[in-house]
Amino acid sequence: MRSAYIEQMAELNAVLGQMCELAGTAMERSTQALLQADLTVAEEVIGAHEQLTVLSTRAEERAFALLALQAPVAGDLRAIVSGFQIVADIERMGALALHVAKIARRRHPAKALPEEVNGYFAEMGRLAVTMATNAREVLNTQNPEDALKLQDDDDALDDLHRHLFTVLMDREWKHGVAAAVDVTLLGRYYERFSDHAVLIGRRVVFQATGQTPEQFTEV
Amino acid sequence: MRSAYIEQMAELNAVLGQMCELAGTAMERSTQALLQADLTVAEEVIGAHEQLTVLSTRAEERAFALLALQAPVAGDLRAIVSGFQIVADIERMGALALHVAKIARRRHPAKALPEEVNGYFAEMGRLAVTMATNAREVLNTQNPEDALKLQDDDDALDDLHRHLFTVLMDREWKHGVAAAVDVTLLGRYYERFSDHAVLIGRRVVFQATGQTPEQFTEV
Repeated sequence: MRSAYIEQMAELNAVLGQMCELAGTAMERSTQALLQADLTVAEEVIGAHEQLTVLSTRAEERAFALLALQAPVAGDLRAIVSGFQIVADIERMGALALHVAKIARRRHPAKALPEEVNGYFAEMGRLAVTMATNAREVLNTQNPEDALKLQDDDDALDDLHRHLFTVLMDREWKHGVAAAVDVTLLGRYYERFSDHAVLIGRRVVFQATGQTPEQFTEV
Repeated sequence: MRSAYIEQMAELNAVLGQMCELAGTAMERSTQALLQADLTVAEEVIGAHEQLTVLSTRAEERAFALLALQAPVAGDLRAIVSGFQIVADIERMGALALHVAKIARRRHPAKALPEEVNGYFAEMGRLAVTMATNAREVLNTQNPEDALKLQDDDDALDDLHRHLFTVLMDREWKHGVAAAVDVTLLGRYYERFSDHAVLIGRRVVFQATGQTPEQFTEV
């Protein structure tokens, strides 16, 4: 019974890992579409989104099968419930990458971003993609220390996001209100994407140790 | 066994209902703080947020107890898993109301909103609070038709949100970039709040009928 649980749980985590990869790839390409006003890449991201929904249904089916067939208790039960929550987090990451691609498409052939803030988005995009990769990794390894490190990249992304706002609020901003609205929304999408990656890390800590990150780091 | 399940599920839904009420009250008062630049009310919303976290933990404990003690199958299992997802939705609604209160506090004693867009936010606030009330109601009644009606209020709110953007993007916008950034974020918070209320309605349809809203409305 126990070995069947372990095997099925590994299968569930494998699907979650695939989902993270899709979400990370989507954010990578959305960022490319945004920075280069590349309509083809934006359309590809939008067209590929359906794959995430398919995997999401598959992951939930596996989690339900674990709940129904293995009659798990205590820690196992909590790990499976975390699985459902991780599905929701990755779905949201994919939706946020999709929002970025849609803004790139809406502004094409113009660039949505003024040149001045390109660097911020290139770096926020890089961090977001790294976080999706790391989330995938810790879903696989179930290493709680590595899972907690997702917080560091999130801190770096939040710093960039704050600096971006000082650029926007500066009286020297010359790009008008429409660009400011786009930059505000886009910044928010990257910030939320990385928040969800941090949540995945927190849930992995819980899956692996039965403790919240706060309890775990107190030890 | 079955009657114990029904009783405990009703208790879980009662906690979820209380959570909806807290989230709705928070959004009502945040909107008031925003429109009137009322610091006291903003602080009250911020201080009350902790209550939602307490109820959230209680709701998750009840859902775990249902999973562990009742060894539920099929439909019951799906209803309990929906319970966890509803907890996450309401938590997010509370967090979004909190964001509104924090912007009101940050701009105090000034008003965050230019007079010109007050009407939009008054109406988006009214709709958002109505949706939280209706979400609470359908959690209690488990009426799938009423649960689906949450979509109508969301459509109305999305319309307002779209109009708000046309006001922002208008060349006549005279309130500068900083106000535009606030209005953009605030609009997004109301929109996401109502999205989560719709999701609760969808989950109630699933709890009550075992069908997705799409399957249910096809019948």
